[in-house]
Amino acid sequence: MTFTYKRLHEALSQLADLSHAQSLLGWDQETIMPPKGAKMRGRSLGTLAGIYHDKLTDAQLVDWVEELKQADLVGDEAANLREFSREQSRALKTPRALVVELSETASLGHEAWVKARKDADFPHFRPWLEKMLELKKQVAKAIGFEGSMYNALLDEYEPYAKVEEIEPLFTELRGHLVPMVDKIAGVDKIASQELKRPFPVTAQERFGRRVMKDMGFDLEAGRLDVSVHPFCSGIGPQDVRLTTRYDENDFTQSIFGIIHETGHGLYEQGLPAELGNLPVGSAVSLGIHESQSRLWENVIARSRHFWTHYLPLLKTEFPSQLKGIDLDWFYRAINRVEPSFIRVEADEVTYNLHILLRFELESQLLKDELRVSDLPSAWNEKMTDYLGLQPPNDSLGVLQDVHWSLGLIGYFPTYLLGNLHAVQLHAAVKRDMPDLHSQVARGELLPLKSWLNANVHRRGSRLKADELVREITGSGLSVGPFVEYLRSKFGEIYQLDL
Amino acid sequence: MTFTYKRLHEALSQLADLSHAQSLLGWDQETIMPPKGAKMRGRSLGTLAGIYHDKLTDAQLVDWVEELKQADLVGDEAANLREFSREQSRALKTPRALVVELSETASLGHEAWVKARKDADFPHFRPWLEKMLELKKQVAKAIGFEGSMYNALLDEYEPYAKVEEIEPLFTELRGHLVPMVDKIAGVDKIASQELKRPFPVTAQERFGRRVMKDMGFDLEAGRLDVSVHPFCSGIGPQDVRLTTRYDENDFTQSIFGIIHETGHGLYEQGLPAELGNLPVGSAVSLGIHESQSRLWENVIARSRHFWTHYLPLLKTEFPSQLKGIDLDWFYRAINRVEPSFIRVEADEVTYNLHILLRFELESQLLKDELRVSDLPSAWNEKMTDYLGLQPPNDSLGVLQDVHWSLGLIGYFPTYLLGNLHAVQLHAAVKRDMPDLHSQVARGELLPLKSWLNANVHRRGSRLKADELVREITGSGLSVGPFVEYLRSKFGEIYQLDL
Repeated sequence: MTFTYKRLHEALSQLADLSHAQSLLGWDQETIMPPKGAKMRGRSLGTLAGIYHDKLTDAQLVDWVEELKQADLVGDEAANLREFSREQSRALKTPRALVVELSETASLGHEAWVKARKDADFPHFRPWLEKMLELKKQVAKAIGFEGSMYNALLDEYEPYAKVEEIEPLFTELRGHLVPMVDKIAGVDKIASQELKRPFPVTAQERFGRRVMKDMGFDLEAGRLDVSVHPFCSGIGPQDVRLTTRYDENDFTQSIFGIIHETGHGLYEQGLPAELGNLPVGSAVSLGIHESQSRLWENVIARSRHFWTHYLPLLKTEFPSQLKGIDLDWFYRAINRVEPSFIRVEADEVTYNLHILLRFELESQLLKDELRVSDLPSAWNEKMTDYLGLQPPNDSLGVLQDVHWSLGLIGYFPTYLLGNLHAVQLHAAVKRDMPDLHSQVARGELLPLKSWLNANVHRRGSRLKADELVREITGSGLSVGPFVEYLRSKFGEIYQLDL
Repeated sequence: MTFTYKRLHEALSQLADLSHAQSLLGWDQETIMPPKGAKMRGRSLGTLAGIYHDKLTDAQLVDWVEELKQADLVGDEAANLREFSREQSRALKTPRALVVELSETASLGHEAWVKARKDADFPHFRPWLEKMLELKKQVAKAIGFEGSMYNALLDEYEPYAKVEEIEPLFTELRGHLVPMVDKIAGVDKIASQELKRPFPVTAQERFGRRVMKDMGFDLEAGRLDVSVHPFCSGIGPQDVRLTTRYDENDFTQSIFGIIHETGHGLYEQGLPAELGNLPVGSAVSLGIHESQSRLWENVIARSRHFWTHYLPLLKTEFPSQLKGIDLDWFYRAINRVEPSFIRVEADEVTYNLHILLRFELESQLLKDELRVSDLPSAWNEKMTDYLGLQPPNDSLGVLQDVHWSLGLIGYFPTYLLGNLHAVQLHAAVKRDMPDLHSQVARGELLPLKSWLNANVHRRGSRLKADELVREITGSGLSVGPFVEYLRSKFGEIYQLDL
């Protein structure tokens, strides 16, 4: 290790320590902070962000990075330099005044969005979204981009991804999904109302924790708590905190929610902790992160194999509620496809169209092909085109998601990338472990966890997302496997030729 | 506000924001952090402490302080400058290498102490205590002191206090207490074993929370959780977190523990939040802080008035356990005086002798009148002299407290100062509110809380501790009122002329 690299390494460790503090303050804010603590917490987070930014852009550190770029580093050192230099360069290019304005606009815009959503009042939110869009364009210009301006924003969540590459895939996918949903909506609906009855919350939690444990989540190095919006926070590889929410009348929310977040959590716990929270030891991209949650939640936990083992166990928790329900009925009920207004409640098929719609609209906004004032009608038009539904108000439409209010523009595609990667990774697991499905049917989930540990988690950010997927699966991102997976699964469930 | 004061004010706010983060990380570590998160947490806290120190001793800030010292500030500005300048000056005088060595020694010494206490093996801890003592002497010399070296350490916990002033008072107190304990130990013991039976923890917690609420603790601006060592953490005036521990077979631990910590918590919640966590808006000293917890725990909650109202309520939580128990029996049982080995389990009378013993021993250590290797025998000798007890091993003796392992030398006297102040303050409350005892007997605790808010809490650190007590009570620290309080209370309980 050269002298200069050692200095860089120390600076990165200190930044990681600061991130750790920021993560904990954020987690606490979303879960257990007393409500009146919000103001002081906001100020403290602002101060920490400022200190982080100052240290990130410290002139001495900039010099070291420049020097090391000439030094032909290899391996982990090269990956650390590559990823850190990306982060530093974004920070250096974004004027401080813009950072402050973004942060203030996010805070006030979020407040306006909460009220607008409550009152289904888009005009109340509109000026904030206009301002945020303007600021994000300034960010994109400051950072610079090749091709579409969208790339500069996408890059923050999905490093190295290019809209010119993903857009054709997304369009191809839409071409498959719209008729698929249409066909399914044309047949009789699957009944599932038997699942919408009171399931005591303590038993939901007990069952959820059982599955977490079976998946190999280490509760000595993590927690499960409750929050309004479920999330996973990797405060450190040895301190990974998941949240969920419980609805007494819909136990599927907490169960699949816990499995989803545990998928994220296993990734965080599986990262190479010995690399000390440095860039190379961090998750590679949000798309890959989402592939982990989706693989577990959908491909595994919405499979017949999974419930072969777990339905009998679920019935011991809920004997009266699930009396007379058999595996076949249950499997169909938890896989019911039905166009609906709200993304986070959507099924495995229609979910993707919710994402496509958002991606298309934000692309148009950035290209000035759409004005914010026309956004609600554009939203409703696409909902009608893709899902055959007309939202009765903007709370069930354009106002439903928090993302844009916080400036998360370019973020939605990562959800869809996660779905595509999940199915590609699943194929690779089956290639390496032909016995996977019978293991799952016996409740043996640890072999899958170990495979993901070795092939995905332990690699940290040594490879870029695309390189990682190519190395594991032998091919790059494509929609074919995902479409085939949906056709096969839902064709069988609905007895349709999809 | 002058330009320079404005700069100082901004710097102080930033330091307060950093403290806020440090407090939360510390609280989380002691309560809910997954065990494997400890290593990363330790590192992050170290980094934050380093950043805090750098900002505290920043050359520009030092210049501003010097400039403002010539500026004849008044009121809150003067108090902020005075208290901040004290903190800064201590930090500037302590060499960074010494700070680092102290922190490392505390960490490793604490580990050694945990093992030593478990195994009752003082020699295992001895070298660490020797090293810590040596480092604390270096700190005292670096900071400088008038009179005894002890003052330099005491000053960190009880600003402006002088051992030359408190030592004669402590000696006077000892002269009263030793014969008092001796007399009480000579009579038949009060029975209390009826209280040592299973009291379900959920009901203990429910009752504890009821009293918290009656005392006026705002749970929208605070929390109650569980930890091994109960504490109160003022993460901010609007985010005050208390902890307790539950022993199913000894409900008095949690009840009096919760009341004690709520006393601390009311102080933190009552601080002038509009001053934004600046020095002037902070608690004045540990002694005054402890006076708040002791006033509520002992003077109020171990009084007959208090249980006139609360015993019937306690009985509704524990009807079978408390069947046939009347107020008189209960009052005597919770006030039983009995010499014992462990400080934190001691009663209101003998507790003070535990503190005196520690204060005397650490004074002797600092004056080189006692060697660390002779500490256990000196401890046991004093235990015999003061309490008539010989600890059977060092875990029940010199190894019982965590303080010295962490370098908290000069800290113990604040517990005793708290007891003295509590009784002095109580007299002042009765002077202003002659109806206090009948209010308490009706469960009306808010008038007392309001008095403390107005007279103690809202004042922050505008006055020094001694000035504050003088202004409220009309006289300085003295042992007379405390001795009189004990004589009267326990004379009546034990029917003795104490």
